[in-house]
Amino acid sequence: MRIIVDVMGGDNAPRETTIGAFAAAKELDPSIEYTLVGDETAIREIAAEQGVDLARFEIVHTTEVITMEDDPVCVMRAKKESSMSTGLRMLAEGKGDAFVSTGNTGALFTGAMLIVRKIKGLQRAGIATILPLANPVLLLDTGANVEVTEQNLEQFARMGSAYMKTLYGLESPRVGLLNNGSEECKGTPLYVATHARLAACEDINFVGNVEGNTLMKDACDVLVCDGFTGNILVKTIEGMGKLLMGNLKNVFLHAGKGPLFFEGARGKLAALLIKREIGDMKRRFDANEIGGAPILGISKPVLKAHGSSNAKAFKNAIRQAVAYASSSTIADITAAMARPVEEKKEESAPSES
Amino acid sequence: MRIIVDVMGGDNAPRETTIGAFAAAKELDPSIEYTLVGDETAIREIAAEQGVDLARFEIVHTTEVITMEDDPVCVMRAKKESSMSTGLRMLAEGKGDAFVSTGNTGALFTGAMLIVRKIKGLQRAGIATILPLANPVLLLDTGANVEVTEQNLEQFARMGSAYMKTLYGLESPRVGLLNNGSEECKGTPLYVATHARLAACEDINFVGNVEGNTLMKDACDVLVCDGFTGNILVKTIEGMGKLLMGNLKNVFLHAGKGPLFFEGARGKLAALLIKREIGDMKRRFDANEIGGAPILGISKPVLKAHGSSNAKAFKNAIRQAVAYASSSTIADITAAMARPVEEKKEESAPSES
Repeated sequence: MRIIVDVMGGDNAPRETTIGAFAAAKELDPSIEYTLVGDETAIREIAAEQGVDLARFEIVHTTEVITMEDDPVCVMRAKKESSMSTGLRMLAEGKGDAFVSTGNTGALFTGAMLIVRKIKGLQRAGIATILPLANPVLLLDTGANVEVTEQNLEQFARMGSAYMKTLYGLESPRVGLLNNGSEECKGTPLYVATHARLAACEDINFVGNVEGNTLMKDACDVLVCDGFTGNILVKTIEGMGKLLMGNLKNVFLHAGKGPLFFEGARGKLAALLIKREIGDMKRRFDANEIGGAPILGISKPVLKAHGSSNAKAFKNAIRQAVAYASSSTIADITAAMARPVEEKKEESAPSES
Repeated sequence: MRIIVDVMGGDNAPRETTIGAFAAAKELDPSIEYTLVGDETAIREIAAEQGVDLARFEIVHTTEVITMEDDPVCVMRAKKESSMSTGLRMLAEGKGDAFVSTGNTGALFTGAMLIVRKIKGLQRAGIATILPLANPVLLLDTGANVEVTEQNLEQFARMGSAYMKTLYGLESPRVGLLNNGSEECKGTPLYVATHARLAACEDINFVGNVEGNTLMKDACDVLVCDGFTGNILVKTIEGMGKLLMGNLKNVFLHAGKGPLFFEGARGKLAALLIKREIGDMKRRFDANEIGGAPILGISKPVLKAHGSSNAKAFKNAIRQAVAYASSSTIADITAAMARPVEEKKEESAPSES
C-alpha cells in the first residue's frame, strides 16, 4: 500500500505535516510506502533536522501551493501543478492507494470530484467527520454541500453506515437525522421529508431525529445533515471542548494562589494528583486525536486533515487513510449505489439549487 | 411590577416552578408582585410544605395543562383555559408586566404571537437565548422559525442589539451572522445575501460571519441565524457542557481507586482541593444559571424557561423577566421598527415558504 501525502497547505505546513508523515512511517506497518508531494528542499531540511532517512519516501517536487483563500476550481485550472492537484492526479492514475491533505477543503473536495471522480450512481460526495464525543459518531456532511436534497441525505446515510460498519466493526450502525426536535414533524420541510424517507429504507437502521444534546448520549453512530449545519455543529463541539479544557487548565494553574503561605498552590497539587486522568480526558475530546475526515463517495480514499493539524493530528489522519484504504468501504458503497432503487426516477432529478 | 408565572407545563412542574417562584419572591425586590397560574391545590400544598406565606401571591386556578406533545394552536382552541393561555391573556389585558413559562415552546410562541401580539412593523418574533459561554452571547432565533428570510435576520439583529444594549449595558453590541466560514461568500444563498444586507445597515454593528468555534472566542455579543440551526447550536453547547463536566466528575470520583492502599483516593483529594473553583466553572457553563429566553418582538415581555428547569433555573428566569420588564428594550425595538426603511417594499413581501 502506498499513501500519497500532500505536505503543503494548512496552517502548519510543510513542517508539521512532514513530521507527521515521518511519525506515521515509524509507527504504522513497515510495509506501507509513502509519497510526499511538496517542496523537496523543505522536506529534505526537515528530514535532516529530525534525523530521518528518506529512503522509504518517494518525493514529488512541486512548488505551487493552494492557499485557504484560493478559489476551489484553481485545483483544476490556475494551480493544476500544485501539491494537491498533483497528489489527486497520482491517486486517480493508480500511483497510490489513498491521498491525505490539510489543504483548502473546497479545493480538495472539488479536485476529488473532478480528478478522482465519485462512485457511480451517487449524487453527491460528503465530508464525514468522526465527532470527538464519548462514543464515536460519524457526522456527514460537514461542509461540502451547504444545500442538499432528501435523496442526498439518504445516500449519506448509506455511505456513513458502510464506513462505520467496516472501520468500526458495527454490525448495524444506528443512523440519526440531525434536527431541532425529536418528533418526526420537526425541522424544515426538507428534514420532515427526509425523516419519512429514511424511515422507509429497510437497509438503513434509522433511529429518528437526533438533537444537539441527545447526540452526546450515545443516540446514534452515524448522523446525517446538510453541510451548513454539519460544519457549524462540528466546529461548536471542537470550540466547546477547547473552551472547557482551557477553563479547567486555569483552575489548576490558579487555584490556591493567594497571599497566605498555607493556602499554597491548591490547583497545582490537584493537577499532580489526577494528571493522568485529565490527560486521558483531554485526549478523548481532542479533535487532533482523530485526524482525518474521509470524503465519502469518492471512488478512491481521499482524506481531509484539519487545517490546523499538528504533527500528531496529521499522523492520525494518515493512520485513518491506511485503515480506510484497507477496508471494503468503497466497494460496499459502490455495491449499495448499484442496487436498483424504487425511486430511481425521482432520484435522477435532484431538486436542489 | 407584577410577574405572571405559569407554574404548570415543563418536566418538573408544578413543584420546581412553584418553589422557583417562591425563591424569586424571597430574593428579588420585595415590591414585585406575583400571580401564579395553575393548580391551586398543588400550589397550596407546596407552599405549606415549604413554609411559605401565600399572602404575597395571587393564585389563578386552572386545571388544564398544555403538554409538550400538544399542537401549538391548542393554546388558542382546544386548551384555551390552560395555565399558559390564561397567563398570556392576563398579560395582554394588562393584568401583569411579564409572563414566564416552562411549557411547550411552540404553543408559547404561537400564543404570544396571537394573544399578546407582536411589535408593529416586525415580520417575525424570535426566541433569544443567552449562551452559557465565557462571555454572554445572545443567540436568536433558537427554534421559533425553522425557515427565515434575510429581512427576518436583519430584524433579529436589531432586536438582539436592543436587548444587549439595555440589559447588558453594551454601548454598541457586536452582531455576528452564524455561518460555516468567515468569508462573505460562505453559507447558503440566504446567508450570503444576509451578510451583504447586514453589512449595509448603518445602525447595526455587524462584525461578519461567526463560526461554531470562533463563537467561543468573544467574537460577538449577538448572533443571528435561522431557528433550525440556532436550536441545534444551543442544544449542542448545552450537551457538550454536561458531557465534559460529567467526565470531570468521573475523574474526581474514580481517580486513585485501586487495589493498593497507598494509592488512596487521588480524585477525591483533588476535588477537595479545588472544590470552589470547579463549582464556579460548573456554574459558568450551566444553562440553569441563565434561566429564561425572551421571545423578542412580542409587544410585552414573554419568557420561555427551559423545559427541564429546576427551581433555581426557574427563579433565574423570573429574575430575567423582571430585568426585561424594567428595561426599555421593547420601546427601543418598537422605535426601531417604526423607523422608515429604504427596502420597505421588499420587506412587505417575505419570500420564505
